[in-house]
Amino acid sequence: MFKKILIANRGEIALRIIRTCKEMGIKTVAVYSTADKESLHVKFADEAVCIGPPASSQSYLSMPNLISAAEITNADAIHPGYGFLSENAEFSRICAENGIKFIGAAPEMINQMGDKATAKATMIKAGVPCIPGSVGLLDSVEQGKKIANKIKYPVILKATAGGGGRGMRIIHSDDEFQKAWDDARTESKAAFGNDGMYLEKFVVEPRHIEVQIVGDQFGHVAHLSERDCSIQRRHQKLVEEAPSPFMTDALREKMGKAAIAGASAIGYEGVGTIEFLVDANRDFYFMEMNTRIQVEHPVTEEIINYDLIKEQIKVAAGIPISGKNYFPKMHAMECRINAEDPRNGFRPAPGKITTLHIPGGHGVRVDTHVYAGYTIPPNYDSMIAKLITVAQTREECIVKMKRALSEFVVEGVKTTIPFHLALMDNEQFREGNFTTAFLEQSFDFSSI
Amino acid sequence: MFKKILIANRGEIALRIIRTCKEMGIKTVAVYSTADKESLHVKFADEAVCIGPPASSQSYLSMPNLISAAEITNADAIHPGYGFLSENAEFSRICAENGIKFIGAAPEMINQMGDKATAKATMIKAGVPCIPGSVGLLDSVEQGKKIANKIKYPVILKATAGGGGRGMRIIHSDDEFQKAWDDARTESKAAFGNDGMYLEKFVVEPRHIEVQIVGDQFGHVAHLSERDCSIQRRHQKLVEEAPSPFMTDALREKMGKAAIAGASAIGYEGVGTIEFLVDANRDFYFMEMNTRIQVEHPVTEEIINYDLIKEQIKVAAGIPISGKNYFPKMHAMECRINAEDPRNGFRPAPGKITTLHIPGGHGVRVDTHVYAGYTIPPNYDSMIAKLITVAQTREECIVKMKRALSEFVVEGVKTTIPFHLALMDNEQFREGNFTTAFLEQSFDFSSI
Repeated sequence: MFKKILIANRGEIALRIIRTCKEMGIKTVAVYSTADKESLHVKFADEAVCIGPPASSQSYLSMPNLISAAEITNADAIHPGYGFLSENAEFSRICAENGIKFIGAAPEMINQMGDKATAKATMIKAGVPCIPGSVGLLDSVEQGKKIANKIKYPVILKATAGGGGRGMRIIHSDDEFQKAWDDARTESKAAFGNDGMYLEKFVVEPRHIEVQIVGDQFGHVAHLSERDCSIQRRHQKLVEEAPSPFMTDALREKMGKAAIAGASAIGYEGVGTIEFLVDANRDFYFMEMNTRIQVEHPVTEEIINYDLIKEQIKVAAGIPISGKNYFPKMHAMECRINAEDPRNGFRPAPGKITTLHIPGGHGVRVDTHVYAGYTIPPNYDSMIAKLITVAQTREECIVKMKRALSEFVVEGVKTTIPFHLALMDNEQFREGNFTTAFLEQSFDFSSI
Repeated sequence: MFKKILIANRGEIALRIIRTCKEMGIKTVAVYSTADKESLHVKFADEAVCIGPPASSQSYLSMPNLISAAEITNADAIHPGYGFLSENAEFSRICAENGIKFIGAAPEMINQMGDKATAKATMIKAGVPCIPGSVGLLDSVEQGKKIANKIKYPVILKATAGGGGRGMRIIHSDDEFQKAWDDARTESKAAFGNDGMYLEKFVVEPRHIEVQIVGDQFGHVAHLSERDCSIQRRHQKLVEEAPSPFMTDALREKMGKAAIAGASAIGYEGVGTIEFLVDANRDFYFMEMNTRIQVEHPVTEEIINYDLIKEQIKVAAGIPISGKNYFPKMHAMECRINAEDPRNGFRPAPGKITTLHIPGGHGVRVDTHVYAGYTIPPNYDSMIAKLITVAQTREECIVKMKRALSEFVVEGVKTTIPFHLALMDNEQFREGNFTTAFLEQSFDFSSI
């Protein structure tokens, strides 16, 4: 087992990883930018190294600084968390070259899944249902129109290097094609330095349902059931839950099998997530694979009593998994508490937290790196806490979430708590009757 | 179901009850003394009524003030929590007379179990193993000596109205009897206004293991497994856990059956606890019955996923229980975080909490009414939080507790956190090899 792990991240996920390391008896090294020196991850690690100024490019994204920090502290592994360098093939490779275990995917797996057209081709080969569309990248507008007419409009044009909604255009007819093509390529080139495009049938009002998987170095892959992440605003997840209220046992079995087949096809090691779109007929389609731990992993942990970070570290250390699949025993939900003003377009609201009261009691979990007196820096993402509730049923889980949200006191900055409170009271949400279009099409933001 | 519950208590248990009421959609009324007006239970209840000055006798123990508060707020039930009036038969009776449901035991049950000699006689009749000793109260020293010689020294003389170690004397020989008798009676008379005494065989170095039970208005009684509360200092519990590391399946079945028989014998309704002493041979003896919710109830909740306060309210409202017994699925432990200085004889340390960080993450529960900036009043008990961890095994549970304790930051007042950290590192404790004598006989308090 590793003796010392450097955590190449910040905020709640850095603290989350430190917690598991402590429970495993592994020493930890925190890294921090000068903007984060008062953060709890710095205080709770065994050692802490300043790796640069607030700009991520010079700190949390600086490979030389991170490798140096690992070397001077004698860390034998690096956990990248999520975001930052967690899905960076070069960083994974550089860690290996320096004799440091990267607790994440191997470079070739990251590359294979990071390029969306390649990922899709791999999944089709593995027999995983994919959305009908172009095979690989599009050569021209003409080719695109031809495919679009075959699979029927609406279609969606997507940047192969894309993410977060950038480099994407929905197209409803031949007439719209040229402009969408030009715009999406320009946007993708600017954002990702790559203007490769592929085309897919646009799935109308799907659910976003993802399957958590874990694979080891011995070829075992198991699934840990699904999470429903359909509550999104501008492609940003706000609430996640498990199991999905849309799920059936038969569908879970089919999606679990598909996820295992996909991960097995690339010999995947570590924890990962296969994201699917699920339509109203419960047909599901591969969307993408995340080769890292995800923000919403706690909902899975709570429904199956399983420490995903611990498993990730064990797998990286060469310990085999049991290989059995896990099925939900409880219902869990996560609300992302962001320092954003939900009454003002979710505008980021960094600043100093003057008063803080964190909810507690039976079935309530909070993962956070903030405290009363902490100043949220404006440099990074705005998530300040994850509030997770767990109960026997979805209804009880929502009631508990409402109760916990009503106890959650954050003064000094605006937060998304009022949004979540309004959502928990929304009839359609309570009925479990929502798709990724729900928030933007049906939710009354003035109810917040 | 009740529409509005008045909580005749303070601190974490008041907040605990408010939480469940919120989840059940029941309105709450907090009561508070002038010393508690900044407490969270006051802020989180739907209504709050000041019931008097800091002295408990004029506030939390004042029946007229509590009944008035219930009447002016139209509360249809009163939850007494633990301590204060939770086992006061007169209060239970007065509530009933005023048409307010007392969420606790009926007056006759409280009386029957509150008088220790009567309780013991009831249990013997129900076939519950009891410690050999006098049947009912002792008439004289001569009678006491006769019984002591029959059951063999050491014996223990106990006040029938006793509690908290007062009015108790261990006696090793006839020579010591007269003085012990005089001292114990004087002490008991002073403390409880009652000098009735009974005698028992003194069980050397027992375990304190209690069985949680729940009964309804239809004669169903079930057990929810046991808690081990052997980690005590001067008869004060400091750490509780479930299941007991000393337990076997066979013993759990026997103790569960005995607890159900005892509770059934008095037609018990509500949640309650039958406390047993268990000797090295795993023979167990009835000690006492608590006719209320206990401080340590969360460890039971965590191992069986069960909200005990919810069940208590439902039973009081006349809803039948399922009647099935519950068995441990997990291991849970609770550390009482008290504002006391463990390096200085656990001297109470009230004062202002200047900095507070509460641990979180997977398997960590905190029940507390305090926050940064809160001043702990010197008038009441010193418990400021209950830290509960839950895991698959006892070993993992301890490791998690250590991690959580190490994250728990309370500045401004001394707390028992350093004691708990030292205990979690104690070899004998980790092995689960301890009795109620452990802390005072074997634990090195200088290791704190």
